[in-house]
Parts: sequence; C-alpha cells; structure tokens
Amino acid sequence: MQPALIQALRRQPTGFTPIWIMRQAGRYLPSYRKIREQYSFHEMVYTPELAAEVTLQPVNQLGVDAAILFSDILVIPEALGMRLEFVEGRGPVFARPIRRPEQVDDLPFAEAADLLQPVYEAVSIIRSELGGRVPLIGFAGAPWTLAAYMIEGQGSKEFRHARAFLYTSPVTMHRLLQGLTEAIVAYLRRQVEAGAQALQIFDSWAGYLTPEQFRAFSLPYLRRIVAALQDLDVPVILFARGAAHALVELSRTGADALSIDWQTDLQWAKEVTGGRVALQGNLDPIALYASRDVLQREVEQVLKSYGFATGHVFNLGHGILPDAPVDHVKALVDFVHEQSAKYHITEPVTA
Amino acid sequence: MQPALIQALRRQPTGFTPIWIMRQAGRYLPSYRKIREQYSFHEMVYTPELAAEVTLQPVNQLGVDAAILFSDILVIPEALGMRLEFVEGRGPVFARPIRRPEQVDDLPFAEAADLLQPVYEAVSIIRSELGGRVPLIGFAGAPWTLAAYMIEGQGSKEFRHARAFLYTSPVTMHRLLQGLTEAIVAYLRRQVEAGAQALQIFDSWAGYLTPEQFRAFSLPYLRRIVAALQDLDVPVILFARGAAHALVELSRTGADALSIDWQTDLQWAKEVTGGRVALQGNLDPIALYASRDVLQREVEQVLKSYGFATGHVFNLGHGILPDAPVDHVKALVDFVHEQSAKYHITEPVTA
Repeated sequence: MQPALIQALRRQPTGFTPIWIMRQAGRYLPSYRKIREQYSFHEMVYTPELAAEVTLQPVNQLGVDAAILFSDILVIPEALGMRLEFVEGRGPVFARPIRRPEQVDDLPFAEAADLLQPVYEAVSIIRSELGGRVPLIGFAGAPWTLAAYMIEGQGSKEFRHARAFLYTSPVTMHRLLQGLTEAIVAYLRRQVEAGAQALQIFDSWAGYLTPEQFRAFSLPYLRRIVAALQDLDVPVILFARGAAHALVELSRTGADALSIDWQTDLQWAKEVTGGRVALQGNLDPIALYASRDVLQREVEQVLKSYGFATGHVFNLGHGILPDAPVDHVKALVDFVHEQSAKYHITEPVTA
Repeated sequence: MQPALIQALRRQPTGFTPIWIMRQAGRYLPSYRKIREQYSFHEMVYTPELAAEVTLQPVNQLGVDAAILFSDILVIPEALGMRLEFVEGRGPVFARPIRRPEQVDDLPFAEAADLLQPVYEAVSIIRSELGGRVPLIGFAGAPWTLAAYMIEGQGSKEFRHARAFLYTSPVTMHRLLQGLTEAIVAYLRRQVEAGAQALQIFDSWAGYLTPEQFRAFSLPYLRRIVAALQDLDVPVILFARGAAHALVELSRTGADALSIDWQTDLQWAKEVTGGRVALQGNLDPIALYASRDVLQREVEQVLKSYGFATGHVFNLGHGILPDAPVDHVKALVDFVHEQSAKYHITEPVTA
C-alpha cells in the first residue's frame, strides 16, 4: 500500500487528509534553531548529515505525513556559478546578478546538476532514516522564479530589474528559462534516483508576472519540466504562487497536483480545475497565531472548502513563518488528522 | 459638457480613452524632486501651496486627463493622533502601533476630518488653478488598508501583526474598521465640498486578506463608504489591489468604477463585471522601462483587452515607480490619446 500522501496526490481514496507544511524544516522549531546556532544556513544546505537531520525533525516531532528535503531553491543558480553572499537582514544576495545577454551564454546549464551531490546524498540518508514511515518530497525552484532571483540579485518587493528584463530582453530571457529548465529537470531526476518519492516545483514569484507574461515566460517551461519527469512515475506538485488566474492551464500541464496559495478560495480552485489534479493547501499561515479554538475552526473551514472528495493534501497556503508557535503547529497536524476522517467515508461498492 | 474622465467613469461615450497615472505627482518628475529637496514629504503634504504645486505638475507637463491630489493615505491615522516617524530607508513608521483593544477606544474618529484643513485648502487651490482644464480626483485609503498600517506600524511584506489581529481580535478589528469608515466618509465629503470632482479609495493591502476575510473585513466597509457618498454625485473609484477574486462583488457596491491591478486580465475583469462599472487600468508600471516600440505595443494590448466599449479609463495597474523615465511617461500619454480613438468610433443613431 502506498503512503497516504502519494495516494492523495494521485486522487486515490485515503482514510484521512494527509498534511505536510511548507518550510516545515525551519526556524520555528527549537531543534532547528539549535543546529542553526552552530552552522550557517549554507553549511546546513550543503552538509548531507545536517540537511538530513533538520529534514527529519518535523517528521519526528509533529507527525506530518511527508518529509520535504531541507534545501534551498538557489542551489541551482549557485551550481551555475553564481556566487551568493549572505548579508545580515537582507537575505541571500548574488554578487553579480544577470543584467547582460552575454552572462547567460556563460552559464553551464548542462553541468549544474552534477555539482549538487551533497543534495542527493542528503536525499539518500533521509530516505534510509525514514525507513518507510512517510514519503520524501524533493523540490526545485521554477525557471521564472530562479531567473527572477538571478536577474534581480536578491529578494525584492518589486522585482523591477527582473520584470523590466521581460520587456527589454525577451529573447535572452527565454534562453535563460530554457537553460534553467534543462538544469531543473536533471536536478529533479537525480533527486528521484537518490530516493525522492514526490516532487514540488516552487514558482514563488509567479505573481510578479502579468497573466499574459505567465503564459509566455512560465507556463511553457513548467509544462516541459512535468513532461520530462513523466517516466519517473513520481507525483509532481506545482506551486505557482499568485497565479490563480492560470489554474485551469496549470491543471492541464500533466502535473498531479497544484499547491494553492492562501489568497485563493480552495472551493473555487477545485471547481475550475475540475478534478483533473489533486489540490494542496491552503490554510493561511497566520491562522497559527490564533487561539486553538479559532485554529480548529479554520482547519475545518479548509477541509470543508475541499469537501467530500479524494485528492486533497492539507498544507499552508505559503511557507510557515519563523515565529509560528510550535504547540499550535502540532495542534494543526492533530486537528487535520482528527477532523478530516469524516470527509473520507467511503461507500461500500455494491453490485 | 463633462470632462472625458468623468464621462468615462460614468460609462458615457468619449472620443478617446482618458488617462491618468497613479502616483503621477511623484518622484519620477524632476520638478517634483526639486521641491522635495527643499521640503520633507510631510511638509509637502500639509502645506497647501506645495501640495497644489506638485499636483499640477503632471497636468502641465504630461497632458494627463485628470489631476489627483498629492497627499498620503496616512493623513487619517495621523489625524487620529497616531504619530508618524520618518525613518530613512524604512518609510513612515508609527511610533505606537495599535496592538491592544483599548487603543482603539481612544481614537477620535468623529473629529479626524476636521483636522485635515490643509488638505481641503490644497484641493481649493488646485481646483482654482486648474481652471476647468481637467477634473481633480480626491482620495483616501480604505478602512482595511489604514487599519493594517496602524496595527503593523509600517509597510510590510507579511503584515503579520495586522493579519494576526484578524484572528485574535476580530471584534476590535471591526470597531476599528467602523471608526475608520466614519472618518473616511467625512474626509472624502470635505474633499468634495472643497472641489474634488471624483474620488478614489485605495485598498492597497486587499491582497493581504483571504477571500473570506476580504468579504468580512473590507467589502462591507467599502460598500458603506460608497453609499454614504452617493448623494454627492461624484464618481467613486475603488482600487482593491490583489482582490481580483472579489471583482463581481466590488462591481455591485454601487461604485462607478473599479481600478484593476496589472496582475489581472482586463478583458476577464470586463467580462465578470458585466458592464456594471467602468474599469480603470491596467498597464504594468514596468512597461515604462521598455523601448518606445514595445511600450506602444503594450498600450495597444491594454486598449484592445478593454475593446470597443464605453467606460475605460487608462491607468497603470499600480503606482508609477520613482525611477520611471519621464520621456516614456509622456509617450505613454500620447500613445493612449492617439491609439484609443479607433476604439471610440460611435455609430450614428438611426431611427
């Protein structure tokens, strides 16, 4: 029998709604902070034993139904030779962001995945330590999201440079996106070879594209990635944050599931995607700061929005924040397990 | 005959598509920066002659079809006694953000509008100096957006405190929103008495609410504001940024027009709002950094999305950025005037 997460992603019946939490291996956990005190974020990402240890923490402590690899979407740009600087209070910054077409020519897209051995080692260790308890999700950033970061050079409220690039240098942009697509596919395939049992692709900055731009600069590459992973037979989840306008197209990419952000009505998402995909989400991460009673009510609200049907994976509608109260995170997992059973009552099949 | 902007907002025929630009009285204009070198932003907002001068600059220099009062949405919280500090690089910060219910009880909602005389004086001066060339738009922040700022204390990527308040203190939140609604209505009425000929309400942080929260904590107050302004007979524009999910409800608030953000497909917005309102927007502000040719094509794209119908006001889908190239802003205004004529060919009325 497959684990509940995999069944739900394939829209098969499960006795309850499985849950995992975006950024569940993160700073809100005291055990994570303890390791972070001794090592830099960068060291944690590239040291297989450390990455494995923090990946397993939420599985051991919270009872979530999946592990998700502790890593960072920026490992691909780094493997492409872009040097990251960690500036306190500013997050990671690329020393030389991409601003000229020639810079794209120099990027070794075909070799990037080979340089990420520590990630695959972490995947192997995690898989072995999990011992089949819950499945392991691998991940990568989507081409547009990585390109946006590489051009902007850092996280941004406006992504002014990356977005201007779409207007001023569309041909170079497509070359960059195509190269990244190639690197991402190779990287995800290696994660699966090492033991990842499901994959999530984070298009975190999809909402920084107009609907027309999303269709031109993101969607085609997401489609190619999904197609290039098809033969691996692992469920693929797409998270195009802020692109609710494209849910119909996203549900036709061949992906098994779509992760829905908290700004989108889950019931509406289910209607427009017409049962073609499983849906993941979408509790507002801020609901974790509410009282237990209110949190419980909000969990019920999400379960009810999805309703009586297969294909729901519970999650937050965005990553958990660093100061989320751990006892409420634990309560969330329990609430979902307890409260979801009634949405999974299966009728006996009668002749 | 009414000015083109007013006619378009009322969905009456015009010979071309009128245009104004959100934050058109702003830092991208050298003449604005010259004044800003001598005075603080705060002094400019509260000195009627200065506010009037920068309000008129884009009208005189760009040929836009409306003036919009140079002011700030935070004047209402300030009039409520909340002290703003201007921290370099951080934007305005409230010295004592709202975190406890008692703080809401102390706010003098009924008197706030009386303290904003300099704004009404600016409106009078602008109206008189415009001499009927183009109409003057007044504005205010929406209740939720002001509340979010007052609770958070500053602009934010997450609005974690303001958003947690929705879960932990919904009753206090409604009290705050109700008080703000009262203050906003009084403030906007005074702007109209002083000479404002149209009004825009900025719900800039609407996208920080779940669809359900938007319906509970923003929409009812927007509805009340619109209703309370109805007798003034000036067109009211709502800009609920990031709330495309609520366009149908917004089109039924009684507002004359909805401003559409650049992340929303204008053609789709027109379809779902079914001709009940005029639409304003929605060129991506970043398109101003493109070449003139590309900018022209993007203008055509927006005009074409709206198509052959009355009720379109051209604008950006968000405020203009401080480093937008002025020559392209001028070109934008000309392109809209030239290219829009063909969408306004009126059929002779035959018996």
